[in-house]
Amino acid sequence: MKVSDIGEFKLIQRLHAIIKTRCVPPVWEEAGRYPLVLDIGDDTAAWNTSGSLELCTTDTLVHGVHFTMRDATWREVGWKALAVNYSDIASMGGVPLYILVSLGLPGETLVRDVEELYSGMLDLCQEYGGVIVGGDIVASPVLFVTAAVTGCTEDPVMRRDAARLGDLVAVTGPLGTSSGGLQMLARGLCFDHDTMQTLREAHLRPRPCLVAGRILAQHGVCCSQDISDGLVGDLGNTCKASGVAARIQAERVPLTSSLKEAFPDEALGLALSGGEDYELLFTAPPDEMRAVLPYLPSGAAVIGELIQGVPGTVVVVDAFGHVVPVPLGGWDHFVEALAT
Amino acid sequence: MKVSDIGEFKLIQRLHAIIKTRCVPPVWEEAGRYPLVLDIGDDTAAWNTSGSLELCTTDTLVHGVHFTMRDATWREVGWKALAVNYSDIASMGGVPLYILVSLGLPGETLVRDVEELYSGMLDLCQEYGGVIVGGDIVASPVLFVTAAVTGCTEDPVMRRDAARLGDLVAVTGPLGTSSGGLQMLARGLCFDHDTMQTLREAHLRPRPCLVAGRILAQHGVCCSQDISDGLVGDLGNTCKASGVAARIQAERVPLTSSLKEAFPDEALGLALSGGEDYELLFTAPPDEMRAVLPYLPSGAAVIGELIQGVPGTVVVVDAFGHVVPVPLGGWDHFVEALAT
Repeated sequence: MKVSDIGEFKLIQRLHAIIKTRCVPPVWEEAGRYPLVLDIGDDTAAWNTSGSLELCTTDTLVHGVHFTMRDATWREVGWKALAVNYSDIASMGGVPLYILVSLGLPGETLVRDVEELYSGMLDLCQEYGGVIVGGDIVASPVLFVTAAVTGCTEDPVMRRDAARLGDLVAVTGPLGTSSGGLQMLARGLCFDHDTMQTLREAHLRPRPCLVAGRILAQHGVCCSQDISDGLVGDLGNTCKASGVAARIQAERVPLTSSLKEAFPDEALGLALSGGEDYELLFTAPPDEMRAVLPYLPSGAAVIGELIQGVPGTVVVVDAFGHVVPVPLGGWDHFVEALAT
Repeated sequence: MKVSDIGEFKLIQRLHAIIKTRCVPPVWEEAGRYPLVLDIGDDTAAWNTSGSLELCTTDTLVHGVHFTMRDATWREVGWKALAVNYSDIASMGGVPLYILVSLGLPGETLVRDVEELYSGMLDLCQEYGGVIVGGDIVASPVLFVTAAVTGCTEDPVMRRDAARLGDLVAVTGPLGTSSGGLQMLARGLCFDHDTMQTLREAHLRPRPCLVAGRILAQHGVCCSQDISDGLVGDLGNTCKASGVAARIQAERVPLTSSLKEAFPDEALGLALSGGEDYELLFTAPPDEMRAVLPYLPSGAAVIGELIQGVPGTVVVVDAFGHVVPVPLGGWDHFVEALAT
C-alpha cells in the first residue's frame, strides 16, 4: 500500500496510532515543568509553562507541490512559508515568538534568491512580530522550506474538538480567493489588474488572523481553526473531533467581488472546497457569538450552525433549504500535487 | 553567485546578517515572558521560561544527500533523523521534551516504510525520553525528514563562544567511526562482521550524549558542542566564536579498534575531519576538567588545549610536536553531497 493510496490524513491517523502506543511522556523530572496540553490533531501542540501556554507548529512548502518559481517570487514564497505557520498560531489565539527555518536548496540556487526568501519571512516578522532564531540549511535536489514556530498565550487555547451542538459557525473573512489565485496562476488566466492583484495576493501573501485569534480567545471562544484545506473539509474535521454535524447556508459564505468576477460559476465551489485562505473558522453558542463579533476589527460572517448528525458531516444548503453539491476537496498533498 | 559557490556556512553568515538588521524582538507584551538567551550560531536556540531554560533545534536529512535507502533501513533513518537533533540538545546540557516531525514523501512511498521510519524515531524516544506532538506531511519528489525538538535545562546552557585561553579540550568518545561507516557503505567495503556492525551502527544509529551533557552542565562546564561536522571543523568554529586557537595532540584522539582495523591509514584523518560522530567536544580550565571527568559514565579523552593564535585556528601535532596535516573537511552540504 502506497502513501498515495490512502492520502495524507489517513496516513497521519495511522502514525498517530503508532505514536500513542509507543511514545512515553518525557522521563526526566524536568519535564514536569512543561506538562503537555495538546498534541497531534490540532493546529499546534501546546504545553504549560508556569501560567502561560507555549505553542509549537510546523509547516512545509515544497517547490512544484505548493508553489512554483514560475508563478511566485522568492520573497512571496518566504512570506507564505512563515504565514501558514503564523496562521496555526492565530487559530489557537496565540502570539508568535521564535522561528526555526529549515531550507533544502539545490546547489545551483542563487544566493540572492535565498536572501529574498528570507526577506519575505522578515517582512512577516516585522508586521506580526516573531524572531528567526535558528534552523538548518541542507543540499536537496528540490527546493523546500520548513518553518517551525513557537508562540504563547495566556488564555485557554481554542481547540478543534471543542465545538458544541447548537453553536453558530463563523468565518473571519472571504473564502475561495486564494484558490482562485491558484487557478489563475496555474492556468495562466488574465483578468483586470485589480482582480489579478487581489487573487495573487490572496494566494501568495496570505495574512494570518493573529489579531482576530487573540480577540476570540480573550472573549472565551473555545473552538477555532484556520482554513487551510478548504471550508467544508476543515469544518468536517472540527465536527468529527467534536462529535457533531454542521449545516452551512451557501448564500452567507463571504466571497470577494474579485473572485465572483473572475470565476462567476465556480466562486462558491472554490469558497467551499478551495484551501489556503487562512481565515479563521470558529464556533460559539449564539449569545457568545453575538457578544464577540463587534470586537473583531474586520468582522466575521456567521455562515451556519452545528446540528445533530453523523459526526463530521457538513451539509451546504441554499436559501430555499435545498442541498448544494460541494466540489471534491479539500487539499490532500498526495492527491492534488500541482504539476511543475 | 550560487549557493554551491559559497557553501553552507558562508550562506548562513549572510542570512544571519540580514536577520540581525531586520528581525525585531517580539512586539507583544507576552513575549517578555520568554526572553531570548541564545539564537543563530549555537547548537540550539534558547529562551527563559520562569526559572528554567527552554531549548529548540531543528535538523533535516535528505535522501541522496544524507542517506540512501540502498544503505540504510527506514528505521535507521528515523532514529538518525531524531538523534542528530537530540545531540544538539545534549550539547547544551539539556533534556529533550517535545518533537515536531515534517516529512516530505514521494507518493509511491510505501505506508509500512513510513511506519518503520516512525518506529525508528520512537525507539529513540523510548530510550531517551521525548514525545512526538505534531508535524506536517507533504508530497515531495525527494524523501526528506525534518525534526524540530524542544528541550529544557535548569543549568546555564553550554555555549560555543565560552571557550577560554588555557582551557583543556576533551571529547566524550571515539571519533571517525561514523565516517568510516559512511565510507564502508558508500564504497561497498567488506570487513569482519563485528567491524562492519560497529561502523554501521556508528553511522546510522548514533547515540546522543544526553547523560554526559547533563553532567557537564551540572558541573559548571561552560563550553560544549556536538561533533557533527568533524573535530577540526567544529573545534575551529568554537575557537572562532571564542576568540582563541587550539592545539590538538593527534595521539590522544580516541579511535575505535574497528576504525583502525578497517582503515589503518585513514583512521586519524577520519577522526580529525569526518563528521557525524555526535560525541560532545567540550573545554574547561584544567582544575575543572579534572574535577568533572570522573563523573562521566563513559569517561572522556583530553586531546589538547586552547592557545593564543588567530581565532579559529586548529593545529594538530604528533608526539614529537610536528604538525600533522588535516584532510579537507568537515562536511559542507553543498560541497560533499553523497551521490545517489
